Amino acid sequence: MSKKWFVLRFTGLSWAWKTTLSNAVHKRLIESWITSIQQLDWDLVREHITKDLGFTKEDREENIRRISFIAWLLSKHGVGVIATFISPYQKMRDYVRSQTTNFIEVFVNAPLATCESRDVKGLYAKARSGEIKNFTWISDPYEAPSNPDLEVRTDLLSIDESVDLVINYLKTNSLI
Amino acid sequence: MSKKWFVLRFTGLSWAWKTTLSNAVHKRLIESWITSIQQLDWDLVREHITKDLGFTKEDREENIRRISFIAWLLSKHGVGVIATFISPYQKMRDYVRSQTTNFIEVFVNAPLATCESRDVKGLYAKARSGEIKNFTWISDPYEAPSNPDLEVRTDLLSIDESVDLVINYLKTNSLI
Repeated sequence: MSKKWFVLRFTGLSWAWKTTLSNAVHKRLIESWITSIQQLDWDLVREHITKDLGFTKEDREENIRRISFIAWLLSKHGVGVIATFISPYQKMRDYVRSQTTNFIEVFVNAPLATCESRDVKGLYAKARSGEIKNFTWISDPYEAPSNPDLEVRTDLLSIDESVDLVINYLKTNSLI
Repeated sequence: MSKKWFVLRFTGLSWAWKTTLSNAVHKRLIESWITSIQQLDWDLVREHITKDLGFTKEDREENIRRISFIAWLLSKHGVGVIATFISPYQKMRDYVRSQTTNFIEVFVNAPLATCESRDVKGLYAKARSGEIKNFTWISDPYEAPSNPDLEVRTDLLSIDESVDLVINYLKTNSLI
């Protein structure tokens, strides 16, 4: 089992397929017997440590700080972390980088129209009508990474090809 | 390195020497090459994930829930946890037990007078005068464990003897 650690940080819009990619990368790593991997996502942290937080800038920042602590704790003990969050602000992504070792910013990217077309839950429509507030890219900013460690265009690549990109990055950097 | 996991939960009054014992147990485990050990205490979690919380019963419960999640995450990946908190309510200690594997409730016990005599920061005096509110055992309840997995009387044993008790418990239960 690898005892290297890393924090793969998937950032991108809703329905850019961050979670889909995270699940697929996790599966590939587990199948390769790299078993010390923890996925962190909104639903998991929301249930346990951030249920007091909403979607204001301050709350999003506090959210990132708490996740960053958990990622630090896990990676300190040799657990690879895959963190899947919109994380719209560059400053906060840089904060997590400063707090962790082998932080990898992965920009999971697809055009807005593609993301909207995938949105079977109709979240974008609700955000456009104002039913959902503070929705990233519609009523809240998204600072796209200007210099990500890796960019994955999920509108141009299959999920398998996207996973290959991530896995190759980890291999090239001797992290697995 | 051991890949067993456990959550050692030290409960007891302020100045019962929970932290002293935690540090000493941690040191002994590290010296025995059992290196995947994480200490969790109030200062650490306060700095990172609970700074919005105070000392009301609700806040203490939320505090325990968040810590419990972290302990679960760590122990899931084979990291032994030593958690040092007053945790005055039995219900909440039982909650952590229900959320984690190999939970060990250690009652770090010393008479109140002994705890007060050790209190170089004068916290008990401030609690008695009302300067500090919600102070356990003075102005807030402490539900002593009725059936702890282990009781350590730090007024009767030396720190070394206390550590022996804890280490022997872990050995007897094949956790190290």
